[in-house]
Amino acid sequence: MIGGVNMPFSNGDFLLVHYTAKVKETGEIIDTTIEEDAKNYGIYSSEREYEPILVIIGEGRIVKGLEEKLRELNEGEEAVFEVPPEKAYGARDPSKIKRIPLREFAKANIEPVPGKVVEINGLPAVVREVGGGRVLVDFNHPLAGKVIEYKAKVVKHVTDEYEKLKLLLKRRFKTKSIDSYDIKLSDDKTSLTVKIPEKDMLLQDIQLAKRAFAREVFTYFPSIVKISFVEELEKQQKAEAKEEAPSSQTE
Amino acid sequence: MIGGVNMPFSNGDFLLVHYTAKVKETGEIIDTTIEEDAKNYGIYSSEREYEPILVIIGEGRIVKGLEEKLRELNEGEEAVFEVPPEKAYGARDPSKIKRIPLREFAKANIEPVPGKVVEINGLPAVVREVGGGRVLVDFNHPLAGKVIEYKAKVVKHVTDEYEKLKLLLKRRFKTKSIDSYDIKLSDDKTSLTVKIPEKDMLLQDIQLAKRAFAREVFTYFPSIVKISFVEELEKQQKAEAKEEAPSSQTE
Repeated sequence: MIGGVNMPFSNGDFLLVHYTAKVKETGEIIDTTIEEDAKNYGIYSSEREYEPILVIIGEGRIVKGLEEKLRELNEGEEAVFEVPPEKAYGARDPSKIKRIPLREFAKANIEPVPGKVVEINGLPAVVREVGGGRVLVDFNHPLAGKVIEYKAKVVKHVTDEYEKLKLLLKRRFKTKSIDSYDIKLSDDKTSLTVKIPEKDMLLQDIQLAKRAFAREVFTYFPSIVKISFVEELEKQQKAEAKEEAPSSQTE
Repeated sequence: MIGGVNMPFSNGDFLLVHYTAKVKETGEIIDTTIEEDAKNYGIYSSEREYEPILVIIGEGRIVKGLEEKLRELNEGEEAVFEVPPEKAYGARDPSKIKRIPLREFAKANIEPVPGKVVEINGLPAVVREVGGGRVLVDFNHPLAGKVIEYKAKVVKHVTDEYEKLKLLLKRRFKTKSIDSYDIKLSDDKTSLTVKIPEKDMLLQDIQLAKRAFAREVFTYFPSIVKISFVEELEKQQKAEAKEEAPSSQTE
């Protein structure tokens, strides 16, 4: 108990979380992990898997206000709550709104239309106004200054080591075959072996995924000091072909 | 002995070969594995390693006439010989010379200059002539129709299994650290384990290199039916930092 608030979860806890987020002011849906919500709000995509996401408390990969609230929930509990801009996508920063000469747009072959998202020096920005040979562009995050309304539920507090490791793997490897990965911790829990199925060998950026996964394992499993990734390739047996067509190499 | 010619080498033999190749007609150097020759002929590049290349007899990765000659040489023997176009880069094929309307070049924003190598429908071609609104382009290999003169030497006939495996690895992984790869054959020689050093994990196209290496091992080492690639990541020990700055996490 801190300040009278129950805090079931603390840094390093692995939670599976379902949530739906919308902009309070407009009701616009930003994101959801729930298939039914996606369909109801008209943002359903068949490309995406709707399932609870992994949240590691203290990791800071999600909006601060959402993470804070999750600490207070119990396993299985759902809450609807608002998060102010400061704990969501930040306050709007007026210094990030700039006037740029129209000719710069002409040079870059970009037509500035109010509302359009453009890229300037590698940064995304929204065109606000065009006039007087100048373009007003806004480098603030599109959700800056917005109060976000969340519906969130802690579906599960994951404590099993292997389940935690699989969740980390899945997050980095972005594969649908995570169950065909063979994961083994040594008896003294200092060493982890991950066997990657042959069909996943060509996953995009797999070598970077291995390193990112390893960094996270070293962070959240203090006993583990070595990770071995193993990829096995087996010879295609051509026994039948050989029997049917005996070798004629008798030079 | 076949037809009175001594044939020391046969299909599947691993040779280390030094060679220098030039166009007979012009004396132009095409390629050399020998640093001294590269310097003498003004084609030296500091980017490149000058060392004998792996030739596996029967593999067909090198010019046919060169491979045929290598079969006849003895270990340590050097020969200078000519290879006709048919056993080098092919005869010139007149049907591969085409007239293309100049406007096609204009459309693709390519200026056709005689002698220039251009890409047309993904194929390289040499511009031969421009005139009358048409461009004569030649899709023949630039060395087609040329007699190639080789100086070649079988530096070594490699028979040691581990040396052969390392040469295959090096060829595919294109790494300068091949000696830090740990290679182990099981006692019954059915299974091979290759440990890849952490610093090579991000080599370009490493996953494709693993598969290509495996294919070749399965071809040239019939007893091997399984290859395991192992990549180990170790936790960075921050012991010193910890001692200097004791943890203050006492919430």
